[in-house]
Amino acid sequence: MQFHLNGFRPGDPLILDAAPGSTHDAATLPAEVDVLIVGSGPAGLTLAAQLAGFDGIRTCIVEQKEGPLQLGQADGIACRTMEMFEAFNFSEKVLKEACWINEVTFWKPDAAQPELIQRHGRVQDTEDGLSEFPHVVLNQARVHDFYLELMRNSPTRLEPHYARRFLSLDVDASAADHPVTVRLERLQGGQVVGVETVRARYVVGCDGARSAVRKAMGLQLVGDSANHAWGVMDVLAVTDFPDIRFKSAVQSLHGNLMVIPREGGYLVRLYVEMDKLAEDERVANRNISLEQLIAAAQRILHPFKLEVKEVPWWSVYEIGQRICDRYDDAAGTGDTPAQTPRVFIAGDACHTHSPKAGQGMNFSMQDTFNLGWKLAAVLKGQAAPGLLNTYSQERQPVAQELIDFDREWAKMFSDRARQGADGLPEGGVDPAEFKRYFEQHGRFTAGMGTHYRPSIICGDAGHQHLARGFVVGTRFHSAPVVRVSDARPVHLGHAGKADGRWRLYAFAGAGGVASAESGLGGLCRYLETAPDSPLRRFTRPGDDLDSVFDLRAIFQQPHQGLDVTSMPTLLFPRKGRLALHDYEKVFSPDPKPGMDVFDLRGIHRESGALVVVRPDQYIAHVLPLEAHAELAAFFNAFMTPV
Amino acid sequence: MQFHLNGFRPGDPLILDAAPGSTHDAATLPAEVDVLIVGSGPAGLTLAAQLAGFDGIRTCIVEQKEGPLQLGQADGIACRTMEMFEAFNFSEKVLKEACWINEVTFWKPDAAQPELIQRHGRVQDTEDGLSEFPHVVLNQARVHDFYLELMRNSPTRLEPHYARRFLSLDVDASAADHPVTVRLERLQGGQVVGVETVRARYVVGCDGARSAVRKAMGLQLVGDSANHAWGVMDVLAVTDFPDIRFKSAVQSLHGNLMVIPREGGYLVRLYVEMDKLAEDERVANRNISLEQLIAAAQRILHPFKLEVKEVPWWSVYEIGQRICDRYDDAAGTGDTPAQTPRVFIAGDACHTHSPKAGQGMNFSMQDTFNLGWKLAAVLKGQAAPGLLNTYSQERQPVAQELIDFDREWAKMFSDRARQGADGLPEGGVDPAEFKRYFEQHGRFTAGMGTHYRPSIICGDAGHQHLARGFVVGTRFHSAPVVRVSDARPVHLGHAGKADGRWRLYAFAGAGGVASAESGLGGLCRYLETAPDSPLRRFTRPGDDLDSVFDLRAIFQQPHQGLDVTSMPTLLFPRKGRLALHDYEKVFSPDPKPGMDVFDLRGIHRESGALVVVRPDQYIAHVLPLEAHAELAAFFNAFMTPV
Repeated sequence: MQFHLNGFRPGDPLILDAAPGSTHDAATLPAEVDVLIVGSGPAGLTLAAQLAGFDGIRTCIVEQKEGPLQLGQADGIACRTMEMFEAFNFSEKVLKEACWINEVTFWKPDAAQPELIQRHGRVQDTEDGLSEFPHVVLNQARVHDFYLELMRNSPTRLEPHYARRFLSLDVDASAADHPVTVRLERLQGGQVVGVETVRARYVVGCDGARSAVRKAMGLQLVGDSANHAWGVMDVLAVTDFPDIRFKSAVQSLHGNLMVIPREGGYLVRLYVEMDKLAEDERVANRNISLEQLIAAAQRILHPFKLEVKEVPWWSVYEIGQRICDRYDDAAGTGDTPAQTPRVFIAGDACHTHSPKAGQGMNFSMQDTFNLGWKLAAVLKGQAAPGLLNTYSQERQPVAQELIDFDREWAKMFSDRARQGADGLPEGGVDPAEFKRYFEQHGRFTAGMGTHYRPSIICGDAGHQHLARGFVVGTRFHSAPVVRVSDARPVHLGHAGKADGRWRLYAFAGAGGVASAESGLGGLCRYLETAPDSPLRRFTRPGDDLDSVFDLRAIFQQPHQGLDVTSMPTLLFPRKGRLALHDYEKVFSPDPKPGMDVFDLRGIHRESGALVVVRPDQYIAHVLPLEAHAELAAFFNAFMTPV
Repeated sequence: MQFHLNGFRPGDPLILDAAPGSTHDAATLPAEVDVLIVGSGPAGLTLAAQLAGFDGIRTCIVEQKEGPLQLGQADGIACRTMEMFEAFNFSEKVLKEACWINEVTFWKPDAAQPELIQRHGRVQDTEDGLSEFPHVVLNQARVHDFYLELMRNSPTRLEPHYARRFLSLDVDASAADHPVTVRLERLQGGQVVGVETVRARYVVGCDGARSAVRKAMGLQLVGDSANHAWGVMDVLAVTDFPDIRFKSAVQSLHGNLMVIPREGGYLVRLYVEMDKLAEDERVANRNISLEQLIAAAQRILHPFKLEVKEVPWWSVYEIGQRICDRYDDAAGTGDTPAQTPRVFIAGDACHTHSPKAGQGMNFSMQDTFNLGWKLAAVLKGQAAPGLLNTYSQERQPVAQELIDFDREWAKMFSDRARQGADGLPEGGVDPAEFKRYFEQHGRFTAGMGTHYRPSIICGDAGHQHLARGFVVGTRFHSAPVVRVSDARPVHLGHAGKADGRWRLYAFAGAGGVASAESGLGGLCRYLETAPDSPLRRFTRPGDDLDSVFDLRAIFQQPHQGLDVTSMPTLLFPRKGRLALHDYEKVFSPDPKPGMDVFDLRGIHRESGALVVVRPDQYIAHVLPLEAHAELAAFFNAFMTPV
């Protein structure tokens, strides 16, 4: 954490100085905004939190409910999401409060007495080294709280406007500015007490599976009809089932069940298989009661006892995988949009799936983390509006992959356990196969399955051999390093904050220290002085040198042999009102055995490598340190000179 | 973190339910309290935060200043203090915001050109494995903030009463209750606007080196007269001195200087040697200016440049080590007090030293962490008042040791570097010797030097061979373990919260799982059922089984081979309104190489061991698991049956 750059300021450094005029008026919606976000769920709040950090961008977020969520539906937080929370500066709060998922256990009908269940396997939840963060479980409402606190403390002091229901939107393509007009109902105690109008440059519908924004755009979710009812309940219970604090998948003769331990050490979520539905039957028609849910869970867990003491929340749902074929109003086909978009949807508004893979909340937040920096770049004049087309182009295909995975997973989960020779019944899913499928797809459930295709913001993989562990199109996989200026062990990826900046991680080659002749020295000189340097072209005069491109260098030498004060200007820049040196740009490998980032991520030790990372932490490019023209061409394709 | 025990409750789990009537009335002091704390510095706040957690105890904390501290003097936070912050549940906030001290570098006059300085050594600041926490630096005001937040969120909603100046106290030994009467001036804008009176059971003066409480008790600080002036300044500066982000000790021909990097990545504290004072001269008479301080620092750092841009805080002080010979009003000599005490002093009120060892704030907080649980135990009727005599008996001697260390350290630090054959001048301190002294005393500066002598609350070391790494009288040295119920890697010592409870860490012997025959099984049976069991004698009927003694078991087996549901009642207790099981009592060794707690802490694998840990995290006893009578006798000596 860096602070006091512009002079010492007492108090909490996370409460940033308010930008002029940044007060929240709960009574009135602003007449004109840059971005109007509809819905304050995980997708909406991730976007709002991202945009709240830019004091030049006017954001408004409206929510139909009368106040913040108290009790959430979603709970699983994938490793990838934790990495994003780190970029938003609150990962440590989640780590502290959440339940950590460490192992998963698998149960099936006992071979000798199939009416009983027996444990048939354990697997580590997350493979070693997949992420520096664990897979955790925490009430969605608390995640909202952390975002809301961040927004309140941001320069724009952004807060949601509650009790506003989206009515309609109109896009006037001929308008000079603020082309989208949105009408909203003002609610009070559930009653409509007025209608307000907001004109926006962009509108993002984060309003859930029944999205009114999506309907207004004429888009729809397409996919499987649901055909299987599941119940879910959060319980405080007494049980002798030994794995109640593990994530456990139980297949029994009486149906299937999933145990998800929850935060606080006592609460547990149970997903309980209920009935198969008829072709066009809806779960609502079944009138499934809590008592039925509990009874089903008790049958499945037999011979173990389950005595439910309190049920803070429960629900019954149908499994169904549905998706929208595009996420914006650009029309045209996916890769050849007819225009630049003005209205977007994100999260459950564009894809729904079963909760089994624990992906709903996670994937929704990744949607708007993808969109947020793009909107900011366009609104700040850093990038041409065409950048916005990449949102749907990138997010729709990866959601399709998720849905395919989820369909398979949910099907296995709803199937009964095959018994084979030693038990009954025949058919169904082999428990060993079920366990194997879980293990094989660990990367997916951890949120690491996303791999963007080449585009204007995602380079080809022509130089991938220079950094095999940093795969272009996937998220930047952090690794431990040592900061040269103070020998502090840090995580390299944690340099990547949700601040809309690009990170250029320059791994030094054998040339080593940034001498003028080395690849790294040449890169620094190029970026600092060349007329076609992206840094010179796209950074506003007077702004800090690293305000658009944040260059970091990683050397192969131990930190003791390096001196930050003799580094090139870009690696020891002077910043802020007082022109103070920034000491946090240069790193060495972690000297602990097996922890050298060059080995861990397969960096070419002779040549080094430049890893270009987007503001959403995805790797945009891997280039030779000397590929100055390629680097310039990459950014010239979508950025706007100042 | 455990929560939802008595039913699900939305919101921040660290905001505890308020006890009835727990509102803060800033305008009026309560007429009667259990404990009146004078002064809201680190000592006062540590005590207040501890007591605030007990809803049956009425605490009042008064402060002469008109509001919370904005800018602190102290900044160094020792590893031991971080361990205590973990017990108060805010270590992660400090870790996030603080500057970490990783290495210390040493500079001396250049051998060839003595008017220049050269680096002659680096040492790791904290030896590996000394603590799970690093040594960090953070503004004292922020530490105050964390305590104040904790107090506001505690059941008693405790907040300081500001603008109250202590006037006098009277102890009426014949009073039936609330024998201490304290008079305080109410201030407004520095003017006295009234006098208030508070009657208290106990009063604790945490009012600094010029303590009015100490004076009212007729006690005084005794020690060296100061004879050397030092300046200290927090600066935002531009420099080419390469170690400005390391803790650095610089000895030059122009005097000595210490660099302490500060939080936020830009701020630095410099301790600068100024003049030697005459025998009875005071530093105030020298009128040393900030300009002189800066000039001295520039001379010492030559040939490196130091361009100071902003100085948020600076001061000039004399080094002096002074101490009070007792910390309470019990009179009598140290180990044979004439009575049980009613008035105490803590922190700078009883010991002052140079800031060089970075111990002032740390040691002060440990004073009241020692006192807090004792006051709580007596006020709750758990222990006889004689327990309170152990505060002065324990804390005064360890402060004396600190002062002896500090005197030596400060002397070396104020001395000039010896040059020997290759340079000038002769005499002074050998830089290599200086570095060696620093290394040798690392445990002291980390806060691990405290070793309490045998007393009613500190057993002899007769069974120390059963757990060589848990030395009786020193703080419980945490180690990594795996929680059996959910395979989560945790730190064993983090079970020890600042909640006034005793921890009984039972390390299983070769008997292994808690069968009735094993030492551990026997211990559980004894504690649960024997008439002379401390747990039965001292736990109120109806209270949770672990509300006074929190038994935790550590087995030698991997967690996969253990089942919490088959553990004895005390290791799988039912608690709270809903009688839910507590799943967090049983641990296995961490399977990573070299991380087995039995090896790390030298636990006797055949016999096992019972490690008894006090509410302030110090080890009270090491006993065989079978030593039931000894265990009972230990607690019978100072606890009060319910």
